[in-house]
Amino acid sequence: MKRGVLQLAVLSLLRSPSYGYDLLNVLGTAGLRTEEGTLYPVLRRLEKEGLLESEWDTSGSRPRKYYRTTDSGRAVQVALIAEWAAVDRALVNVLDRVGGRTNDGADADPESRSS
Amino acid sequence: MKRGVLQLAVLSLLRSPSYGYDLLNVLGTAGLRTEEGTLYPVLRRLEKEGLLESEWDTSGSRPRKYYRTTDSGRAVQVALIAEWAAVDRALVNVLDRVGGRTNDGADADPESRSS
Repeated sequence: MKRGVLQLAVLSLLRSPSYGYDLLNVLGTAGLRTEEGTLYPVLRRLEKEGLLESEWDTSGSRPRKYYRTTDSGRAVQVALIAEWAAVDRALVNVLDRVGGRTNDGADADPESRSS
Repeated sequence: MKRGVLQLAVLSLLRSPSYGYDLLNVLGTAGLRTEEGTLYPVLRRLEKEGLLESEWDTSGSRPRKYYRTTDSGRAVQVALIAEWAAVDRALVNVLDRVGGRTNDGADADPESRSS
């Protein structure tokens, strides 16, 4: 479940250029805590696929590789959002059908509350 | 993205016993169209892991293998729902941050509408 989500999050966030360490922080804050060892291969793969591009910034005290989403990457991002929304709706349909979304049956029998 | 979703959907739906062909229909109706060749290995794997159990029904014109979610399977289902909800919230956080959820920037510049 997580791999596609990370790709979508990265393509979304890198519509504003950023570098690995900053991305890790932002992902963590958003609730998608990710390890360097997970993020960096994803960044390299997405760049290889032409969905990200990168540029070294050597103006600071240490060089940083800034990534940004390309036009192709943005098209993929939009498609992934649509896919995510469709899957989300489908899951809600399934969970509504079985009544498992908000309640695991614990309160299905009101008399069980008195025991 | 899809594999975890299918597992969650199957564990949810099989809280009421059902068989493969019926599941395919229900998944399709919910918006998770799935091929036999995808679903059946998932059912077998989940059974092997003890999350589903099965029983042949030979009372009809043709034998049918009914699956149902075990207690372990239900515990996993509940955990997966929580995971799904957390990932969902995280993605909404990310997309809100970049403003990419409802708008791909097409209307960001009002003057572009007149061109």
